[in-house]
Amino acid sequence: MRVLGVDPGSYRTGYGVVECQQDYYLYITSGIIQGKGAIEERLREIYEDLCAVIREYSPQALALESPFVARNVKSALRLGQVQGVVLLAASSSALPSFQYSPMEVKVALTGYGRAPKEQVREMVRRLLGLKDELFLDASDALAVALCHIQHCRLT
Amino acid sequence: MRVLGVDPGSYRTGYGVVECQQDYYLYITSGIIQGKGAIEERLREIYEDLCAVIREYSPQALALESPFVARNVKSALRLGQVQGVVLLAASSSALPSFQYSPMEVKVALTGYGRAPKEQVREMVRRLLGLKDELFLDASDALAVALCHIQHCRLT
Repeated sequence: MRVLGVDPGSYRTGYGVVECQQDYYLYITSGIIQGKGAIEERLREIYEDLCAVIREYSPQALALESPFVARNVKSALRLGQVQGVVLLAASSSALPSFQYSPMEVKVALTGYGRAPKEQVREMVRRLLGLKDELFLDASDALAVALCHIQHCRLT
Repeated sequence: MRVLGVDPGSYRTGYGVVECQQDYYLYITSGIIQGKGAIEERLREIYEDLCAVIREYSPQALALESPFVARNVKSALRLGQVQGVVLLAASSSALPSFQYSPMEVKVALTGYGRAPKEQVREMVRRLLGLKDELFLDASDALAVALCHIQHCRLT
């Protein structure tokens, strides 16, 4: 099972592909889409880059980190715009998509919904046997991919 | 000058194309995109249908009604998702996009930012010389297209 995890943000969107082979996880790729210019150009970059990742690495599902809270309505609208093009990248590639809250991701990786971000990142590195430092947004995207795999195993 | 106006909603997205010829407005087309199924399918339908409208009617700009308030964060995220794919439809068609608040649309059409919706709709029908009833969401989409044209004339 191969999963594309996405941590959306209007300035930096992280992505990471993880494969689950029987009892262990395999790191495939990860990166950051760092849009430039006006919001509509940044949305286009996120959409096109994610479609390219899907074509290149053929994941079977897309897992998206979706907070249900935001600082204010303006930031919720902005975050929603990025979520919209991520969900569209999945549906236009005929890929099923699944949304997890930050708390669900934390529980899946550390067993504790209020775990600090550093602990989640350390678990991502351990589970994937990574030695190098990862970009933080890419690490968060790998975390939501791992969360989805664990969720599938338990259900 | 030909403008595509869009009134986004996760269940019904209205669109309308208006052309401005010297001193009068010409109604070109309008309609409703009524998505079905899961949100990612509805987003795909909105994106694909808007891209088809852009290809068929060749507008020179897209005007989007963008509230800056929402009932709550959840509805702001949902509205943002639709806005995201509308902005993407514009940028992937190399169409400049412009956002107007509901108040700006009301001021442009009636001169009064708190005008009731019925008054705005009546002005849309008068300006475009329409006799038939329009779907409400389509009428709101035509209103934002007219607002953009007025804005361009004044600046």
